Amino acid sequence: MSWRRILGLDPGSRTSGYAVIEGDGHSHRFIAGGVIDVAKLALPERLGSIFTAVSERIAQYKPDAVVVEGVFMSKNVRSALMLGQARGAVVCAAMNAGVPLYEYAAKSIKKSVTGNGNADKKQVCYMVCRLLQIAERDHTDETDAMAIALCHSFYAAPNARRESVR
Amino acid sequence: MSWRRILGLDPGSRTSGYAVIEGDGHSHRFIAGGVIDVAKLALPERLGSIFTAVSERIAQYKPDAVVVEGVFMSKNVRSALMLGQARGAVVCAAMNAGVPLYEYAAKSIKKSVTGNGNADKKQVCYMVCRLLQIAERDHTDETDAMAIALCHSFYAAPNARRESVR
Repeated sequence: MSWRRILGLDPGSRTSGYAVIEGDGHSHRFIAGGVIDVAKLALPERLGSIFTAVSERIAQYKPDAVVVEGVFMSKNVRSALMLGQARGAVVCAAMNAGVPLYEYAAKSIKKSVTGNGNADKKQVCYMVCRLLQIAERDHTDETDAMAIALCHSFYAAPNARRESVR
Repeated sequence: MSWRRILGLDPGSRTSGYAVIEGDGHSHRFIAGGVIDVAKLALPERLGSIFTAVSERIAQYKPDAVVVEGVFMSKNVRSALMLGQARGAVVCAAMNAGVPLYEYAAKSIKKSVTGNGNADKKQVCYMVCRLLQIAERDHTDETDAMAIALCHSFYAAPNARRESVR
């Protein structure tokens, strides 16, 4: 299978992680990653900034696929409304750019990089940095985004979309 | 005060109402309204379609302001995640188009058009159609969007933003 470039995104209403990787499903390399920090802005500006930042990353790195967590949870209604809006901004940026969007359940993502669907963030961080052969990062939004991108690479066979969990 | 054109939006994950009105805070006229129905699509496509449809309405009607409900509620975490994403798509479209966005609490919106912050949808529908001098509509997503737009017109003094409830 040929190498493909994947943008993984872990949206949040205050900070969102992103990671660009390349891979063929077996070997991978890290291209770029970081955190989109909008915590200081008012809510509408936060959503606009997330949309703009993701649109810019897509324009800059030209990924073949954008990947987000599909089935996601939240503590309560208020945080769900906040997280939902941030996720809406990220999904809109991908759809607006015309890049195929893929979704995987949190458990599938964790299992794909650690072998354990209930792995904690630290374990995920350790493994994604190992798989991408980079020094360990201290921001789990970014390493979660790497895990999301890696998960898609592992599953990115022609039938990947059917394997995703909505 | 001069007349201004206002786009009111009532986002939902299945159907979203929109209404374009013109007004000076006292007199108003109805320009356009309707429902963006994305119920048949998968979720990412729903968000992309909402974003595109709202962007198109903004390009077509060139509103001076986009208005949405600010403080909003949801029955449970699952519906909050869905509603949040739809709202994120709508807010991103306004921010991406560079149109000022205003928010009002549901109670403020209902009070502004009926005099009662706890008015039901039927009462809101009756009053907005009367205020805009149009025949009664049967889709409350659309009439709720009219109420949202009218609310901003009533409050749209130079200090409107401060009066809004986040």
